[in-house]
Amino acid sequence: MSKFSTCSFMSYTTLLQPRASLKVQKEGIVTARCTKVARNLNMEKLRNNYLFPEISTREIEHMKKYPNAKIISLGIGDTTDPLPEIISSSMADYARALSTPEGYKGYGAEQGNKELRKAIAETFYGDLAIKDTEVFVSDGSQCDISRLQLLLGNNVSIAVQDPSFPAYIDSSVIIGQAGDFQDETGEYRNIEYMRCGPQNHFFPDLSTTSRTDIIFFCSPNNPTGHAASRKQLIQLVDFARENGSIIVYDSAYAAYITDESPRSIYEIPGAREVAIEVSSFSKIAGFTGVRLGWTVVPDELLFSNGFPIMNDFNRIVCTCFNGASNIAQAGGLACLSPGGIRALLSVVDRYKENARILVDTFASLGLKAYGGVNAPYVWVHFPGSRSWDVFSEILEKTHIITVPGSGFGPGGEEYIRVTAFGHRECILEASERLKSLFS
Amino acid sequence: MSKFSTCSFMSYTTLLQPRASLKVQKEGIVTARCTKVARNLNMEKLRNNYLFPEISTREIEHMKKYPNAKIISLGIGDTTDPLPEIISSSMADYARALSTPEGYKGYGAEQGNKELRKAIAETFYGDLAIKDTEVFVSDGSQCDISRLQLLLGNNVSIAVQDPSFPAYIDSSVIIGQAGDFQDETGEYRNIEYMRCGPQNHFFPDLSTTSRTDIIFFCSPNNPTGHAASRKQLIQLVDFARENGSIIVYDSAYAAYITDESPRSIYEIPGAREVAIEVSSFSKIAGFTGVRLGWTVVPDELLFSNGFPIMNDFNRIVCTCFNGASNIAQAGGLACLSPGGIRALLSVVDRYKENARILVDTFASLGLKAYGGVNAPYVWVHFPGSRSWDVFSEILEKTHIITVPGSGFGPGGEEYIRVTAFGHRECILEASERLKSLFS
Repeated sequence: MSKFSTCSFMSYTTLLQPRASLKVQKEGIVTARCTKVARNLNMEKLRNNYLFPEISTREIEHMKKYPNAKIISLGIGDTTDPLPEIISSSMADYARALSTPEGYKGYGAEQGNKELRKAIAETFYGDLAIKDTEVFVSDGSQCDISRLQLLLGNNVSIAVQDPSFPAYIDSSVIIGQAGDFQDETGEYRNIEYMRCGPQNHFFPDLSTTSRTDIIFFCSPNNPTGHAASRKQLIQLVDFARENGSIIVYDSAYAAYITDESPRSIYEIPGAREVAIEVSSFSKIAGFTGVRLGWTVVPDELLFSNGFPIMNDFNRIVCTCFNGASNIAQAGGLACLSPGGIRALLSVVDRYKENARILVDTFASLGLKAYGGVNAPYVWVHFPGSRSWDVFSEILEKTHIITVPGSGFGPGGEEYIRVTAFGHRECILEASERLKSLFS
Repeated sequence: MSKFSTCSFMSYTTLLQPRASLKVQKEGIVTARCTKVARNLNMEKLRNNYLFPEISTREIEHMKKYPNAKIISLGIGDTTDPLPEIISSSMADYARALSTPEGYKGYGAEQGNKELRKAIAETFYGDLAIKDTEVFVSDGSQCDISRLQLLLGNNVSIAVQDPSFPAYIDSSVIIGQAGDFQDETGEYRNIEYMRCGPQNHFFPDLSTTSRTDIIFFCSPNNPTGHAASRKQLIQLVDFARENGSIIVYDSAYAAYITDESPRSIYEIPGAREVAIEVSSFSKIAGFTGVRLGWTVVPDELLFSNGFPIMNDFNRIVCTCFNGASNIAQAGGLACLSPGGIRALLSVVDRYKENARILVDTFASLGLKAYGGVNAPYVWVHFPGSRSWDVFSEILEKTHIITVPGSGFGPGGEEYIRVTAFGHRECILEASERLKSLFS
């Protein structure tokens, strides 16, 4: 920046700046003293950092230790391939038009642009008769999970698959549904952990599962990569109906399903009365940074007093959210155009091929690897080992970041999750490094 | 759309669609029956709809009644003028680059892009020594208010200006801080309403204000348009320090300040130990639909046990949010460039001129109008009238949408809020219509 433009910058920012001098501010602060506001006990209950920032911290430490190492990240499930041009250009056109009188848009509907809601209903729910008014557009499913927790409040009980995406449990602790963390078990009290592993085909034994108000269920599962079969989901819906429970079904990875597993909980008869579905453009369209998702709340889903849950969700969306970015929504609409869908499915196919390479790699090493067929995650078993130890050993010896399975719950111990998101050359390089480490 | 492309659409969407037929789904649903999940009592406590969707509903009803009327909306404070080209083109360039290997970005930091955090700290807080690490980028201040409520939990007490932006109270009720609504007073129990009107220069009488943990304070205030003076804010900070309270200071309209009023709470000595500041690009940059804001949590702000509030806010941001859209963040950075600031301040000036026209209009009619100098809102007094009646009469007779003051709390009764956001020709037309109605 030239000297002139720096000056100009100062002069214009001055128009916005506060007027007190640093001196005054410094005089005001003698030393930091506590307020009399007590820390929220729910926040105090939370164990450890949220998983992914913790892994970032480990990565940064590793980079300091080995400044010349070429780190390959197969950790956080972050998309790496460029967006199809048809999608990026539609967002670019929308953004550019914001500087014209015809193209400028202010607040949109909190629930999302009507055209996008309709396109989501048609594209993802086809003949399942999901109405556009049942689709709420969001800035991502993780955000919607917290908004659902706000809606549900602290007086409900929850069940989660174990292992599972940590946001379900963490948001539950934050809102006050959970009891204390127990070091012996690695579990919070008052949360029902539904163990899922190879021993039960990655589907919980419902005959021994306690009734809860809410059942978080992610399929294809993050981290195990298992997509529940139709038979399994029928059991789940029947279980929820018998118990009067609500399933919060996370289908963020549905586009990766290769076999005959259902792509939506609403494929299961009776699900409309017991299930909310949260989903996302992040992994199907590479929108992890663009931020776009949706939640379906069917008309028929009612609280015990008959009050429609949709009404409360709408109220939460209007009060605690103000709609997804209109530029991201324009991108979402382009994703669901004929050319958009074709283009993004080819990106999904590339990631699926990555998953196949990783599954083959672990298989060739004699390691048991699950997932990777219906999901962009491979779940690798290291019997008898602690998952943070496996994480550390792989990082130390191959400079590859993975995710320790125990970060997804005690049921993830002895496992690591490896993501198939990555450039092909990185996946191939990672495969070579893993082969030299383990063979 | 040609027949061919429609077919192609069907064929590609089929790849994503669920496979159950409508028939099966219909068979599954006999009749909607209740779950056994109790409705959240906090949600049940909420009165009425959230204000702005309620006004939209009234507008739609009016349009049905008068299909040929040319409605002018001076209701929700929604920006109307196109973005400066320098800002829209930077978002367009960012979006377009997402389809290139060099330009593609996945997840960003949950707290926001480092460069943007730095630019916000420098532009808006200049020599107040706010660090970039104390700035958390968000998708808007309304969203951050709910996230702050999640952080604070249900065991704190709050105070609000009365009248004030309804999200403070509504989010407080949702998280469980409030008691029941009392029809006689129009207030929720357990919330301290700090009456602000002409009788006290729009600043609460702190000598009669009860101590609360949290004080929501919006300046320039929405809806009254009053910017608190330095002297008033020194009183407020002193009050918070004496009581060990935390101020949640909403400065979303700071760019509209014309006089010497502080633009940030951190201009006041000692504020870093007692204040969080939420703010937004919505009203300074026309980003109501693009969605971008920020929250400042200073290092020195501590809970009663000495735990830094910033750490818990960071945890909330990582767990319940995933960062603002990267395209919106690129736009925010362009806003804070020299050319960007220059351009957006000229838009702010246009809206301020609108406010002046509206203030003059009401003054010429002998009505008492407040605000409009330091804020894009004009707050008009109709002594002895109910504000929803005034709203309805103006709508019925002039086809102008305003906001009834009581929507902002019982202290807003007898007032309406009129927004200065609007195209100049609409403001002038509204001025003429109001003159014929009231003169």
